[in-house]
Amino acid sequence: MERIEHRACFGGWQDVYRHRSQVLGCDMNFAVYLPPQAAQPGARLPVLYWLSGLTCTEQNFITKAGAQRYAAEHGIVVVAPDTSPRGEDVADDPGYDLGQGAGFYLNATCEPWARHYRMHDYVAQELPALVETHFPVSDARGISGHSMGGHGALVLALRNPGRYRSVSAFAPIVAPSQVPWGQKAFTAYLGGDHEAWREWDACELLRQAQERLPLLVDQGGDDEFLEGQLRPQLLQAAAEDAGHPLRLRIHPGYDHSYYFVASFIGQHIAHHAAALRG
Amino acid sequence: MERIEHRACFGGWQDVYRHRSQVLGCDMNFAVYLPPQAAQPGARLPVLYWLSGLTCTEQNFITKAGAQRYAAEHGIVVVAPDTSPRGEDVADDPGYDLGQGAGFYLNATCEPWARHYRMHDYVAQELPALVETHFPVSDARGISGHSMGGHGALVLALRNPGRYRSVSAFAPIVAPSQVPWGQKAFTAYLGGDHEAWREWDACELLRQAQERLPLLVDQGGDDEFLEGQLRPQLLQAAAEDAGHPLRLRIHPGYDHSYYFVASFIGQHIAHHAAALRG
Repeated sequence: MERIEHRACFGGWQDVYRHRSQVLGCDMNFAVYLPPQAAQPGARLPVLYWLSGLTCTEQNFITKAGAQRYAAEHGIVVVAPDTSPRGEDVADDPGYDLGQGAGFYLNATCEPWARHYRMHDYVAQELPALVETHFPVSDARGISGHSMGGHGALVLALRNPGRYRSVSAFAPIVAPSQVPWGQKAFTAYLGGDHEAWREWDACELLRQAQERLPLLVDQGGDDEFLEGQLRPQLLQAAAEDAGHPLRLRIHPGYDHSYYFVASFIGQHIAHHAAALRG
Repeated sequence: MERIEHRACFGGWQDVYRHRSQVLGCDMNFAVYLPPQAAQPGARLPVLYWLSGLTCTEQNFITKAGAQRYAAEHGIVVVAPDTSPRGEDVADDPGYDLGQGAGFYLNATCEPWARHYRMHDYVAQELPALVETHFPVSDARGISGHSMGGHGALVLALRNPGRYRSVSAFAPIVAPSQVPWGQKAFTAYLGGDHEAWREWDACELLRQAQERLPLLVDQGGDDEFLEGQLRPQLLQAAAEDAGHPLRLRIHPGYDHSYYFVASFIGQHIAHHAAALRG
């Protein structure tokens, strides 16, 4: 594991590491924000995992969301991985919404994707194991994300009961099986059998969830992808059917950009901090 | 004047406008953050002008500094212009530190720059006149900036007594006449007569200043340009010689990036708010 960026930020350090991922079979970057509290002897801080959206790398969130201020206030480590496996020998697609930059946080079963595209296992298992070995963190984990990464956060929390103490999402793709982004990705990564899709669809998973981890979801009311790709009302209906706790907030005027994420990330970090420190 | 971006952010709007600049003889973009208070009937809010550094456009500050949160808290409009004239018929240079993206906030006198490179007059006069005509603002103006833009903020405040009520800078080029970035730019824009350079050098201007506007300057202690290009000790010496109020803070560990700016922009906005609302 090699540290490739190291920048003082709000009294802590915004770092980026590169390491060889066994799960993904490629080199990967991930960002880690270490708040000032991480420097205290014997510190064991909770960790919030952040999953970014289509086209993003580990950079977008750390440069645009302004989360470090809140992480420093609450004493939370924030880990932001890249959004897919990377490299010349990793399958790709000319579209922005498939292949590199668009891993959808699942384990692909179809060729040419199955070899490298195992972002679920990477984010849920390999990356936390690495983080918990090398940084002053506890096993209190939260997860959040934006758009495709909001889908990832919901799916990872729902598929892995007990692994996360808190979950939230910004403008998530809540029902990928029912919208173009998800249908394209699932067809490529998982094949045409829609039964297999259910295991990676937050609305489907919610109906079977045994854990009742409360969901916090923020959505811009003027998001350009609201009706075509996001459709939060499907999550609301699934949560109501399942009796699953969901706090869904629609914010008039806000769009799909990081200006929206930045405006509410402080509230999300407070939400995670309450659960992770509680 | 055409609005080309309009994004909800911290209860207000992060907008970008394009207009024809008479002073610069080209189309220019500028960003304006309108905090929630701007929507109140009869609002007349103070304005902070932000000047960015080499290679930047109006985008860097608004996407990376996280200033909107603090501007919303304090009810301040923040205007961030581009860093030079732009366009195919505007002179340029292959270097990142001269020509487009590197206007140095002065009025050039040498060819091929003199026609368009008049960023001082644009920022000090044309842009505020436009802003004060079209937005709900008062004539209470502050100015700040980063690196080349920190130089710009100091020089504009020192050259225009009475025009700004507050000034601050992050990692400014305090003595462009004495460092490579400034010497290259001044030689091109102003020619070889060093006497002309004195009018655009904060350390020189400080020695003649009649107004005693307190300067707030933050500098990263691990800034990669600290000794080669920035040399804040020269500003400190000039301020001591002139009896000019200066609060210079060196922050160990911080570099030249927007992670540094983001970490302290809240304190700068509070500093400006106190002066602008006082």
